[in-house]
Amino acid sequence: MDENPKKLAMVVFSGTVDRLFPVGILASGAVAMGMDVEIFLTFWGLQAFAKRSQGMPPKFSVDYADMAPMFAQVLKQKNVPSPMETLRTAKQLGNVKIYACTMTMDLLGQTKDDFIDLVDGTAGVGEFMDRAKDAQTTLFI
Amino acid sequence: MDENPKKLAMVVFSGTVDRLFPVGILASGAVAMGMDVEIFLTFWGLQAFAKRSQGMPPKFSVDYADMAPMFAQVLKQKNVPSPMETLRTAKQLGNVKIYACTMTMDLLGQTKDDFIDLVDGTAGVGEFMDRAKDAQTTLFI
Amino acid sequence: MDENPKKLAMVVFSGTVDRLFPVGILASGAVAMGMDVEIFLTFWGLQAFAKRSQGMPPKFSVDYADMAPMFAQVLKQKNVPSPMETLRTAKQLGNVKIYACTMTMDLLGQTKDDFIDLVDGTAGVGEFMDRAKDAQTTLFI
Repeated sequence: MDENPKKLAMVVFSGTVDRLFPVGILASGAVAMGMDVEIFLTFWGLQAFAKRSQGMPPKFSVDYADMAPMFAQVLKQKNVPSPMETLRTAKQLGNVKIYACTMTMDLLGQTKDDFIDLVDGTAGVGEFMDRAKDAQTTLFI
Repeated sequence: MDENPKKLAMVVFSGTVDRLFPVGILASGAVAMGMDVEIFLTFWGLQAFAKRSQGMPPKFSVDYADMAPMFAQVLKQKNVPSPMETLRTAKQLGNVKIYACTMTMDLLGQTKDDFIDLVDGTAGVGEFMDRAKDAQTTLFI
Repeated sequence: MDENPKKLAMVVFSGTVDRLFPVGILASGAVAMGMDVEIFLTFWGLQAFAKRSQGMPPKFSVDYADMAPMFAQVLKQKNVPSPMETLRTAKQLGNVKIYACTMTMDLLGQTKDDFIDLVDGTAGVGEFMDRAKDAQTTLFI
């Protein structure tokens, strides 16, 4: 059975930086354990990977506005890598595939060229579900 | 093994329209692949299916208030079906069951009659977990 | 096969009380069905279990600010147990393990002693994924 590596699948709907951190961290953790990772970027999560979104100040979930400034300061002080940097490292160390949701792209008139190079390709929801159906763990983030 | 169709289970806690879109879209995608779908509506997600909530202007997550107006306009321009319409179509094409959380209903003094006809019945959390335990993919949305 | 109890795993990222309710309720439901439960507290979810957070007025998700006061009132009127109380009961009735995310703790300079006694121990993301990989259901909340 262990010939087939285990797999973590994530539907990344959210686009706030605090919710993107777990995406990078879970991908890293999975790769460290020899798992494959499939990521499906959709809605706000996909927009966070748009070229035009890069370099903008990270936005935290409004729900935690009281703790966010402290959190942002600590992340900076300790030079914590951004979710994008963590994903880049995870891709260098293991099998992490990142797909842009074609439906969101069609809606917003976007093409693969609008996204940073972390995005490997595009996929419809059916393709993603086909990939996710043999994943040991699938998360909606 | 393939006599038993695969299954997608979703706990729908969220009630903002942007988070309900993936519920409809994932249900459609699953049905198109011959999968069964079990949906458990709870908290705010259940309230979105109340009769009195229908026809109200869709509310987006506050976190994406900057992008929401553009998104809402595109959805309207392109005549994108609402999450409820998408679920209705998915139910016509496949086996999609939608349950209202009895605990939320008890809390708020609601009965099955308070919800639109997309809701097939009511279920306690134990019943849902029993149904979800053989699902290939279970998401909390 | 039934010698190995089934397992529910939850990554609890969120810290608003409305999102913590399902954590307690799902844990209770799982325990009632003889399942094991593994909970991994991270980011805002972990902060909700800090000793200094206890006794503070519960915060609801901003997205549902219109319905939250009504909900809060009903919860109080009906003496609905808090998520923490529900988890405490679930731990008395079954095998529920709750771990604090070491990365979040390191970031914020926290130690196990900063958290209430519901927290059984600490775990890195890799340890949690190792525990979660044989769970029938894994949710990100």
